Amino acid sequence: MTQTSKNIAIIGSGLVGSLLSIYLKKKGHSVTVFDRRPDIRTIEFSGRSINLAMSNRGWKSLRVVGLEERIKKIAIPLDKRAMHVNDKPVYFQKYGKEGEAIWSISRGILNRKMIDLAEGAGVVFRFNEKVWDIDLPEAKIFTGESEKSEWKEYQYELIFGCDGAFSRVRHKMQRRSRFDYSQSFINVGYKELTIPPNEDGTHKLDKNSFHIWPRGKFMLIAMPNIDGSFTCTLFLPFEGEVSFETINTEEKAKNFFKTYFPNVRKEIENLTEDFFKNPTSAMVTMKCYPWTYWNKVALVGDSAHAIVPFYGQGMNAGFEDIHVLNTLIKAHGDDWDTIFSEYQIQRKPNADAIAELSYRNFVEMSSRTADPKFLLQKKIEKWFAVKHPNKWVPVYSRVTFSERPYVEALAIGDKQEKIMEEVMKLPNIGEIWDSIEVERKILSLL
Amino acid sequence: MTQTSKNIAIIGSGLVGSLLSIYLKKKGHSVTVFDRRPDIRTIEFSGRSINLAMSNRGWKSLRVVGLEERIKKIAIPLDKRAMHVNDKPVYFQKYGKEGEAIWSISRGILNRKMIDLAEGAGVVFRFNEKVWDIDLPEAKIFTGESEKSEWKEYQYELIFGCDGAFSRVRHKMQRRSRFDYSQSFINVGYKELTIPPNEDGTHKLDKNSFHIWPRGKFMLIAMPNIDGSFTCTLFLPFEGEVSFETINTEEKAKNFFKTYFPNVRKEIENLTEDFFKNPTSAMVTMKCYPWTYWNKVALVGDSAHAIVPFYGQGMNAGFEDIHVLNTLIKAHGDDWDTIFSEYQIQRKPNADAIAELSYRNFVEMSSRTADPKFLLQKKIEKWFAVKHPNKWVPVYSRVTFSERPYVEALAIGDKQEKIMEEVMKLPNIGEIWDSIEVERKILSLL
Repeated sequence: MTQTSKNIAIIGSGLVGSLLSIYLKKKGHSVTVFDRRPDIRTIEFSGRSINLAMSNRGWKSLRVVGLEERIKKIAIPLDKRAMHVNDKPVYFQKYGKEGEAIWSISRGILNRKMIDLAEGAGVVFRFNEKVWDIDLPEAKIFTGESEKSEWKEYQYELIFGCDGAFSRVRHKMQRRSRFDYSQSFINVGYKELTIPPNEDGTHKLDKNSFHIWPRGKFMLIAMPNIDGSFTCTLFLPFEGEVSFETINTEEKAKNFFKTYFPNVRKEIENLTEDFFKNPTSAMVTMKCYPWTYWNKVALVGDSAHAIVPFYGQGMNAGFEDIHVLNTLIKAHGDDWDTIFSEYQIQRKPNADAIAELSYRNFVEMSSRTADPKFLLQKKIEKWFAVKHPNKWVPVYSRVTFSERPYVEALAIGDKQEKIMEEVMKLPNIGEIWDSIEVERKILSLL
Repeated sequence: MTQTSKNIAIIGSGLVGSLLSIYLKKKGHSVTVFDRRPDIRTIEFSGRSINLAMSNRGWKSLRVVGLEERIKKIAIPLDKRAMHVNDKPVYFQKYGKEGEAIWSISRGILNRKMIDLAEGAGVVFRFNEKVWDIDLPEAKIFTGESEKSEWKEYQYELIFGCDGAFSRVRHKMQRRSRFDYSQSFINVGYKELTIPPNEDGTHKLDKNSFHIWPRGKFMLIAMPNIDGSFTCTLFLPFEGEVSFETINTEEKAKNFFKTYFPNVRKEIENLTEDFFKNPTSAMVTMKCYPWTYWNKVALVGDSAHAIVPFYGQGMNAGFEDIHVLNTLIKAHGDDWDTIFSEYQIQRKPNADAIAELSYRNFVEMSSRTADPKFLLQKKIEKWFAVKHPNKWVPVYSRVTFSERPYVEALAIGDKQEKIMEEVMKLPNIGEIWDSIEVERKILSLL
């Protein structure tokens, strides 16, 4: 359907805001992006970012506007996990079938590139301009130096809130009655660390792997950058015996790494310096509803659904929002009432599903990976999936390498979990786990 | 333990704020209460209040500061429910043992009385003074005409946020990292209506009953006032076949009452006029954590835990917060760190429990009261409780007529529900429900 050109404001020049601006600009709209922060192209990155793992949903959304190949040039494919267990050689777990990979990409580099591409397409960016208030029914925004200074007023026809987990746009919607909202923090924080490149610019660890050092209640991960370095993320409880609270001196930090990460320790230059220099960040699951206000305002990405990062799907889910919006725009033309209403109806259950899956992955990683019964269950699932690849697609693959709805992945995952509960009840399951009996049992329950 | 006199600000002059001010004043503190609204003693009530049901927890908290008897003079004891089913005579259900009653009291009258008493005790009230910002670590508050006007700064030693479900104090705490928060609205709204007194000033319905007209997805309740009138509350879905949305003309409102509340219709003067004049209000469950900031700021009452009104416990829970605070103050003297930390640790699980119980009562009333199986279950429970009053105390009594923690009531309620699930599975339960077999079954499961 044809669409009338609209005057559109996007709040937030992050990944979702800049990709959405490209989509809308290509449809012929006039698009201005506001950001309270300076242009990310002019500043150093903040040292508080987990590297991104672009997977199928993200690529699909980039492909539609012809960006896939350009972005792949600044990304590195990871086709396996590299598990680092103390006193054992590294072992590798392939993600899936031939060619299935997640792509490591630096948030900063990607964001700069996206803004370049948007600007090239004709999108106007207004950096360092702080939005303090939004008139939702009138689609007006108010900006100024501070909350109490003189404000400038802008009139738009549509406003998109892409301003992240602590969205100002949502904040305004939240004050209205009957707006459901929740934010829930986990008791684990994270900190960015860096493994620099070798002197010749090559990577110090296998560059096509997602590196994990699991340690029960905490873990370290590393993802490669195109400059030969790795961005590492240390996930650690805020409080407790081994925690950000208790590791409060250089001595204690050194001992912590010596005890738990003896091999990686020598790779991370300035380890303790970075540990105390870089901020400790919190992680939140944020849910809300509705996501839209009439045919005027819509939330997209983290502003509508922020999730914990343990499934690597935050950006992918945000990009998929845009893809869904685009499909609805194509179908409904100028009928923004229907576009917005369908958008939130379609996306809300899927956002809830990936929030749940991400949270479960956190619980699994922090409490179940040391449980021998859980490890046996995972071993059986893997064994069965290899024997019957069409009958047992793991949830991870459904989320990461498919474009089917997240709700479907969650529902099938629940079904698989129920089956495995029955299987784990079999007497002597520890001995017979790879027997024909177990195989038949699973087949009968499927 | 002895306590040093502190300079204390309370934000909010509602029931919880004014009772807390009396408690603190009696301990020798200097207490100022701020409220953005005018003095409730100088204005007409708003027409959007459900009458309060004071029960044991509320009375306990009033007793400690010697107010029980004074407040009982403006309250009416209700020792039973009066159920109004169409085409049947009214039937009465006693709440419990002899003398057990909830007390109907008008929010406005109670609030006025509490402010009088607080003022008499030496508490300073600053009405019409809007708090816009709070410096949490410094315990400063900022007030002014508007968010953008010149602000006045006040320095205190302690600040209590008693400013209700949409608390400004909590709002400030909410912006900090690791603050868990949720607000969840139900799809039913409510509207206040009034049954005026007879000409001689007497009540038109039995004045010692809590009147209920259950109608499945909606219901009407009425609670007596001391002036002979009843405050009625109509609970009705916002949207759907029979809803606030669809009843949008005088004609439709008349038909609605004619169809569903034929007997009460003639008692409510100005029925349709009130229906369109009075606002439709939403109901929310709000949870958050933490409730305190260092030894400086604490949330009390609805600002920390707003619940839906279907258990009649909102004010009682808020008053119980104060009672708990008072006990901790007695135990820990000047150690406000410990007082605040113990306060939130003790109260949070209980606030969550009464939120859950209140929400369940809403679900029960709106979807289960028409289910014959559910009604049978309730009949069996009642029959068993009469036979074994010490072995089966209903959850309602544990919540309403006891001072034991809400968590305990919830846990025992869950246990009772599990037992009844088993009982309801017995073959022919419909016929044998009052048999020795069922009695033995329950006894064996207890």
